[in-house]
Amino acid sequence: MSGNTFGTLFTVTTFGESHGPAIGCVIDGCPPGMDLSEADIQPELDRRKPGTSRHVTQRQEPDTVEILSGVYQGKTTGTPIALLIRNQDQRSKDYGNITETFRPGHADFTYWSKYGIRDPRGGGRSSARLTAPVVGAAAIAKKWLKQKFGTEFKGGMSQLGEIAIPFQAWEHAAENPFFAPTADAALITQLENYMDDLRKDGDSIGAKIDVVATNVPVGLGEPIYDKLDADIAFAMMGINAVKGVEIGAGFQSVAQRGSVHGDEITPQGFVGNNAGGILGGISTGQDITVSIAIKPTSSIRTPRQSIDKDGKPVMVETFGRHDPCVGIRATPIAEAMLALVLMDHALRHRAQCGDVVSPDFFAR
Amino acid sequence: MSGNTFGTLFTVTTFGESHGPAIGCVIDGCPPGMDLSEADIQPELDRRKPGTSRHVTQRQEPDTVEILSGVYQGKTTGTPIALLIRNQDQRSKDYGNITETFRPGHADFTYWSKYGIRDPRGGGRSSARLTAPVVGAAAIAKKWLKQKFGTEFKGGMSQLGEIAIPFQAWEHAAENPFFAPTADAALITQLENYMDDLRKDGDSIGAKIDVVATNVPVGLGEPIYDKLDADIAFAMMGINAVKGVEIGAGFQSVAQRGSVHGDEITPQGFVGNNAGGILGGISTGQDITVSIAIKPTSSIRTPRQSIDKDGKPVMVETFGRHDPCVGIRATPIAEAMLALVLMDHALRHRAQCGDVVSPDFFAR
Amino acid sequence: MSGNTFGTLFTVTTFGESHGPAIGCVIDGCPPGMDLSEADIQPELDRRKPGTSRHVTQRQEPDTVEILSGVYQGKTTGTPIALLIRNQDQRSKDYGNITETFRPGHADFTYWSKYGIRDPRGGGRSSARLTAPVVGAAAIAKKWLKQKFGTEFKGGMSQLGEIAIPFQAWEHAAENPFFAPTADAALITQLENYMDDLRKDGDSIGAKIDVVATNVPVGLGEPIYDKLDADIAFAMMGINAVKGVEIGAGFQSVAQRGSVHGDEITPQGFVGNNAGGILGGISTGQDITVSIAIKPTSSIRTPRQSIDKDGKPVMVETFGRHDPCVGIRATPIAEAMLALVLMDHALRHRAQCGDVVSPDFFAR
Amino acid sequence: MSGNTFGTLFTVTTFGESHGPAIGCVIDGCPPGMDLSEADIQPELDRRKPGTSRHVTQRQEPDTVEILSGVYQGKTTGTPIALLIRNQDQRSKDYGNITETFRPGHADFTYWSKYGIRDPRGGGRSSARLTAPVVGAAAIAKKWLKQKFGTEFKGGMSQLGEIAIPFQAWEHAAENPFFAPTADAALITQLENYMDDLRKDGDSIGAKIDVVATNVPVGLGEPIYDKLDADIAFAMMGINAVKGVEIGAGFQSVAQRGSVHGDEITPQGFVGNNAGGILGGISTGQDITVSIAIKPTSSIRTPRQSIDKDGKPVMVETFGRHDPCVGIRATPIAEAMLALVLMDHALRHRAQCGDVVSPDFFAR
Repeated sequence: MSGNTFGTLFTVTTFGESHGPAIGCVIDGCPPGMDLSEADIQPELDRRKPGTSRHVTQRQEPDTVEILSGVYQGKTTGTPIALLIRNQDQRSKDYGNITETFRPGHADFTYWSKYGIRDPRGGGRSSARLTAPVVGAAAIAKKWLKQKFGTEFKGGMSQLGEIAIPFQAWEHAAENPFFAPTADAALITQLENYMDDLRKDGDSIGAKIDVVATNVPVGLGEPIYDKLDADIAFAMMGINAVKGVEIGAGFQSVAQRGSVHGDEITPQGFVGNNAGGILGGISTGQDITVSIAIKPTSSIRTPRQSIDKDGKPVMVETFGRHDPCVGIRATPIAEAMLALVLMDHALRHRAQCGDVVSPDFFAR
Repeated sequence: MSGNTFGTLFTVTTFGESHGPAIGCVIDGCPPGMDLSEADIQPELDRRKPGTSRHVTQRQEPDTVEILSGVYQGKTTGTPIALLIRNQDQRSKDYGNITETFRPGHADFTYWSKYGIRDPRGGGRSSARLTAPVVGAAAIAKKWLKQKFGTEFKGGMSQLGEIAIPFQAWEHAAENPFFAPTADAALITQLENYMDDLRKDGDSIGAKIDVVATNVPVGLGEPIYDKLDADIAFAMMGINAVKGVEIGAGFQSVAQRGSVHGDEITPQGFVGNNAGGILGGISTGQDITVSIAIKPTSSIRTPRQSIDKDGKPVMVETFGRHDPCVGIRATPIAEAMLALVLMDHALRHRAQCGDVVSPDFFAR
Repeated sequence: MSGNTFGTLFTVTTFGESHGPAIGCVIDGCPPGMDLSEADIQPELDRRKPGTSRHVTQRQEPDTVEILSGVYQGKTTGTPIALLIRNQDQRSKDYGNITETFRPGHADFTYWSKYGIRDPRGGGRSSARLTAPVVGAAAIAKKWLKQKFGTEFKGGMSQLGEIAIPFQAWEHAAENPFFAPTADAALITQLENYMDDLRKDGDSIGAKIDVVATNVPVGLGEPIYDKLDADIAFAMMGINAVKGVEIGAGFQSVAQRGSVHGDEITPQGFVGNNAGGILGGISTGQDITVSIAIKPTSSIRTPRQSIDKDGKPVMVETFGRHDPCVGIRATPIAEAMLALVLMDHALRHRAQCGDVVSPDFFAR
Repeated sequence: MSGNTFGTLFTVTTFGESHGPAIGCVIDGCPPGMDLSEADIQPELDRRKPGTSRHVTQRQEPDTVEILSGVYQGKTTGTPIALLIRNQDQRSKDYGNITETFRPGHADFTYWSKYGIRDPRGGGRSSARLTAPVVGAAAIAKKWLKQKFGTEFKGGMSQLGEIAIPFQAWEHAAENPFFAPTADAALITQLENYMDDLRKDGDSIGAKIDVVATNVPVGLGEPIYDKLDADIAFAMMGINAVKGVEIGAGFQSVAQRGSVHGDEITPQGFVGNNAGGILGGISTGQDITVSIAIKPTSSIRTPRQSIDKDGKPVMVETFGRHDPCVGIRATPIAEAMLALVLMDHALRHRAQCGDVVSPDFFAR
């Protein structure tokens, strides 16, 4: 209830601070009998870990995951699965005036106002580092959904600052440091130069990320409040730095006519997907398509005006290891959140309606 | 858990179908001792009720609310407040082939796929009519928040189809049928003509709605999953026909630099509000600003291809009383959802941190 | 979260006060496609309603239930089922000093202390009348469990004051006003005389009630906190006037040796049932056996010392229509609570583990 | 929802198996700003740890707790507090036929039936070892309740098998290996001889434990389902081996008359405490008194008949380190559960009603 548990039936309760002894999570509700080991989880953590290119933070964290419970002889037992990731890069550095001042764009002021105390080391609990345990948990959800329904998750960057990244194919997202779903080498170079310039300027930039789930069973989502799209919006807006969420046609729907937007249906299936795979809060069986807006990193080397705990004006300038575009590493995180939402709704669905049997309705 | 309860500490559990005997809700967790009667609730219901202009559905529903419990001698007692709204306009008409076919853009296919059964009368549970009980519940939340913190809610339409509606002042939203926050008579005429043309075409259109909460206490929001912005996104995306949600700068953040986006702080307060009043998932005390994209009404008089329950192709054409732009009546609904989120978080905050005492930090 | 919702997946949210306009509940999570009408619910309400013998309160309430939603053409749709029971016997009598004084043994002092306000009419929210909606909701659960697993619920009184009621057969519970599972006419006469004497004395008495569920599937219960027995204890202790709960051997376990208590297992099944059908918090497939202690009615005609809102001493004497033994009408309520717990756990079980397929393990 | 989280606002999510790498928990919702270190928690763990006398299991576990998060510079920050206890005594012994057979009285059969798989090492998740993390979490709750209200928790054994232990004073519970609240040396000797004889017989025995909370604020408890007594019953019945729970007069209420049971009130306070400190599900401000029945340990050296996974009859005999009376170590666990319930309800109360200000009502 204090906000550190995600999900209702497949729950992920995380703990930890950026520079504390460890981060991790407890996953409850995992169906029993599924093969599981650290080898299923580590690759997902590696996709989002820092230090993999010059365009992201140079913090070195192996993010090695240990399964503490819930698995016996290589299979899930139905009991809680605890994941532990020790923080290795706890630099006992001087945090300087960060502990006394509120960095613009950061959660410093709000945590301090809410709790009367905050852990300033590396952003404490509000650090994007805390997305690691969820990515780990989502690896378990992804595996189950894949085995059960064939569901898969893909994602990539569709815009970096002012630069649009036309979609070519999801597999290209793994071929460049930006998760850009394109094989256009010139465009990749443009993105790299853009980032290099930005770093020189000591500034940062936003990004737009798209994620998609394929082979989604029909019928997931609990109207009228825990709609599938509502829970996706909740999951996405909860990711650090996200300021906007779209499902399907998103904000383009505003200027669309009903005769254009409403996806017609034929015996072979839906004709379009303006709905983004969700109608009335329930999955249609089409691809679920989501876009998110990620704000520019708040930690920049450009001096900015702020105040300290006594309300006195100060100038704040951030040094050290920071992603100049937090959007770059956001793709695996957004995929993870989408997977957790679908996993949770798959279990919720069968609680009320019994096991999902996708109607082989359309002549696909 | 089956999705018909909104909130965690101030909960609203709704029931009812568009053409059943009644709709209503049970509100649990309301603080005791607050003056309350139907007169506090009815005006909010009247703001969103149908039949108030030629641009919205002509269904005639007085939407008269009855308080069944939780109030004694004009004061809340801390026990559940049940609201009942009898459906008066239950036309026992022939629903015709609607019961056997899936209307494009509607929840017909998904409800039927999920539950194996659906109530087709007026959209059943998926009807926008079900926003009435929440608007009623939110009237209670609004009253408490106003008394406790001075918090107020405002909203209006910022775009109708392709037509942008430049903001002038919130009070104008009550002066025209579109909730347009403008006194520009020519623009209102343009909107009216636009809607008239649309009706003649038998088509519908989308809209963009903005809502704002003012005098919000600092410190509301539960990181790291039940962030205030995450819960707002959940609430908004759960409204019928919403396809996109933005907080603060929203999708504009994508092309912003950190040196532009991050709101600087001075001893007098924040310099800007790209954050939309929320940092790290916790309210900053600034205005909370939200925008939503609403898709065009799916029920249109233009024939569209679809299928029936046997998978056979059919043409679907909707007659009767439908909003050609569901966005027109969405403003009070969006305000209501925002109020419910803030109410819930106000109670959650004081559970953990004690009563909210907004630091008189800034020299406002 | 404010305590007026029972259950997690099959939830019952109740509302109403003893003398308000209506009481009722919203049931969420009911599986779709089950035949349901008021005729399934009314008989259960009739079993617990007042005025059926001279040994219970003479309040006349038909307790007629109306289904407001969630049923279409005689079948559940998977959407919330709202039940409404109008209070007919709202005597606008003078409640006299009850409104200013705290009756011993009642919730008057605690409600007033907690909320700073209380509805004194007939006990307000704390009245046993509020068990009616749950009994109605449980009728739905019972029907589903019966159809799905053959599960049935039985119960009766095993002790009235000092008088033990030896068990003969459950069906006898329907044959006398005490729900006594005996055909011993002399014993029934003894109970009647006992009650008559008590009424003459203006006093009241406690009772012990036993309930049993048969044909329970194996595997229900969520360790290690939401154990089946823990949830049963929660449900039972939450019934008005209950002061003790036992599962299986209950307090007799204290003096039992392990070699006696632990139920041995053979290829034909368990040899005994000291466990009461639950091991490690999970159902074994045996009968679930529960006993509860019900305190004597607090409202008695004997004058008792108490205080008023100003802390001044007063004498309190209760007149009017009260059950001299609330335990007499408790059997259908205890059955109802047990049914709600099993229903909820049946849905929870299949969420995580898939549909229950009771292993045909034993050669029964 | 899968049952491994205790509480609603002050939540404890546990993980781990008896012989896995580690056990632990995540505590969410702790108020910020409280001094906290391992030194506050370790003493409570030491009270319940095994190996402290010859009358309990000789398993040697230091149960050393590590705080992984939620504390900064010695103070709670309001973020999740993770506790980790590494299992040191993981004997990689041959579990022999335990893995293939179902021990009578244990959860072996039910876990296997529910999940289709079970971790047989030391009872896996169903081991009483899993009470350690909760005891750790409760140490935090106890500290907060003590500071905030002066609330304290005491407990002890009131019956061992057939031997009643008359209460003298709580402090004596710390002076003997049975948590017996008596200074009667002859009685202690009798208990020791009783246990020695039992061990020689290879048998086990039940016990009755009483716990009490003092200085409880008035007004805790959420009617009408999340009553304080209902949640206490839930908490207590969820402890391993508990088969019965009583509040106040408990099962003695059955034979009590209303004129005896109902506690009268005077300007100086309540005259008696048959209510056990709770009326209408809400605390009265009196001591909360609870009794629980604990069944005899199921693991005994006496051979017992059972079956294996193939349904074949087998004889089961347990060797090794087991408590011959699990009740002996139950006192700190029962105190812990009571503390967690009160902590949770303290936060729930102030969510709805604001900070608890116990009315200085009585002239105490």
